[in-house]
Amino acid sequence: MALGAGVDRVYAGLKPSLDPLSQLLGSELDRVNQLIVERMQSPVELIPQLAGHLVASGGKRLRPMLTLGCARLCGYSGSRHIALAAAVEFIHTATLLHDDVVDASDLRRGRDTANAVWGNKPAILVGDFLFSRSFELMVADGSLRILEILSRTSSVIAEGEVLQLMTQNDLQTTEDSYLEVVQAKTAELFAAASRIGAVMAERPREEEEALDRFGRNLGIAFQLVDDMLDFSARQTELGKCIGDDFRDGKVTLPILVAYGRGDQEERAFWRRALEEMDQRAGDLEQAIELVERHGALAETLSRARAYGATAIDALAIFHDGIERRALIEAAAFATERRS
Amino acid sequence: MALGAGVDRVYAGLKPSLDPLSQLLGSELDRVNQLIVERMQSPVELIPQLAGHLVASGGKRLRPMLTLGCARLCGYSGSRHIALAAAVEFIHTATLLHDDVVDASDLRRGRDTANAVWGNKPAILVGDFLFSRSFELMVADGSLRILEILSRTSSVIAEGEVLQLMTQNDLQTTEDSYLEVVQAKTAELFAAASRIGAVMAERPREEEEALDRFGRNLGIAFQLVDDMLDFSARQTELGKCIGDDFRDGKVTLPILVAYGRGDQEERAFWRRALEEMDQRAGDLEQAIELVERHGALAETLSRARAYGATAIDALAIFHDGIERRALIEAAAFATERRS
Repeated sequence: MALGAGVDRVYAGLKPSLDPLSQLLGSELDRVNQLIVERMQSPVELIPQLAGHLVASGGKRLRPMLTLGCARLCGYSGSRHIALAAAVEFIHTATLLHDDVVDASDLRRGRDTANAVWGNKPAILVGDFLFSRSFELMVADGSLRILEILSRTSSVIAEGEVLQLMTQNDLQTTEDSYLEVVQAKTAELFAAASRIGAVMAERPREEEEALDRFGRNLGIAFQLVDDMLDFSARQTELGKCIGDDFRDGKVTLPILVAYGRGDQEERAFWRRALEEMDQRAGDLEQAIELVERHGALAETLSRARAYGATAIDALAIFHDGIERRALIEAAAFATERRS
Repeated sequence: MALGAGVDRVYAGLKPSLDPLSQLLGSELDRVNQLIVERMQSPVELIPQLAGHLVASGGKRLRPMLTLGCARLCGYSGSRHIALAAAVEFIHTATLLHDDVVDASDLRRGRDTANAVWGNKPAILVGDFLFSRSFELMVADGSLRILEILSRTSSVIAEGEVLQLMTQNDLQTTEDSYLEVVQAKTAELFAAASRIGAVMAERPREEEEALDRFGRNLGIAFQLVDDMLDFSARQTELGKCIGDDFRDGKVTLPILVAYGRGDQEERAFWRRALEEMDQRAGDLEQAIELVERHGALAETLSRARAYGATAIDALAIFHDGIERRALIEAAAFATERRS
């Protein structure tokens, strides 16, 4: 298969890892984290409490790392990237707070969600606060181009979240619709986070667009793997939660593939569990058995790798140095990670 | 009473009404409404449906009218005020959508709320969308000063909403805390909506600050009257809902006054209904009887008028023309309206 061979070529010899990027960034990510903590302060005590709970809950900080890494790749040598990386993470954090309310999630990364601890009301309002804070950071930076990119991104994310609600519980969702949701709710912010690295370094439009393509394809790959891991038995061994999407009735790629390849009886099972939301004991195990039997997880991973390879290819126009290699290995990590 | 006399002097001979401001603005408010409808469009159909429901539900458009009116007062003759007034209204609309979810409200202005029709999930996400759209409008306008004012305002609103949650069900709330909530959740946006009129007309800082003071005091007056009207029997005659704050356990000024002036038995009633949230048939009628008996509504109105007079006084530095008179009559309307 041509596509598969191309992907193998791109991935050959790569060590998928975030470590080279972390090392490259050195203390910059710490400075971002410090700024995040500083800017979530408020005389209204509940705000830093609730925001701090989420911020401390151990996300990978992938999006701000992309902003920092892409700025470095473009030879940026100022310090604006710190505040802009924090702004990107605040947009993400605000989205997570609202997502967990919308999904009525109790756990995220194995910890209680903010809405589980403090209830939905403050989680919604603190999300609004962090979102506003992210704009304050961007305004203080002062680039209208970057404000334009990130305000448009925020609208697209919200559109993607609404579209996701509308495809929930609907097994007639097409793969195109599914990808549209993934593009909007996840890949758009990865694209913007990467692109602004070139904008602040005042690089030509061609490099901006290459970084947008890099981030966007990396974001799609990342989300596909997330959707795959939600059915991965290996995750439970690592003490992680699985089956969140299934319980919410989210129709992700592994399900679309298994449903498409399933027989009548299997399709009746998926309809009962995801459309009628009549879920019973043993259903998640049954779902895992089906996605595995039909190769739906392998199929999802293979697609994710194709997007990962496209992301890596997008970096071809940049100089081959430690920055580019670190970003490539981070992109490979997005698909090869198993948690 | 010195204060009362001052207030009477300011209000003497005024015709409280929004009509002069409406007439002054002519088709400008229609242009704002058109832009609002245009910018709430999205390929995701649920978004314009849900946003349109709220936008069409008959708000007074007081905030965008302030932006338009203050721009005119400052001699502004361009067309940026249209988009900025729409941005202000979008911030307000996003806040309303989230408020109604947080308060679990079923009705707003006598119509079903968006969350009552479509559920909480899309109401939260469409709120996020409108909020992002408001920033897109500001970014397209291109003034970093205005972006700074309105992004800070958005943070303060969210802080005020969280603070309101924390004072809910707490009869130990001080009048200072109550006013802090009112300042943040309501008056801040009135202040910003007014101030940006001077910013776009490039008027000196003194005029900006006068308009900020005008909007802020008007906003406090407006909210106090809102809180009073929630207990007004007259409202029911007009077919309006009352008792929303009471049912939510919100501790507003009429309650603080009645509680402060009440005897043991009355205080026990307020504690049961608002702190323990053990509300029974006849409780709202009882609450209305108590706020009336203790003059708490008259007291709230008298305070509102004092803020209204301060708002009007803030306009003293501007030329006495139809613009100033229209804004003064609009400010008087905020306190003299009975619905």
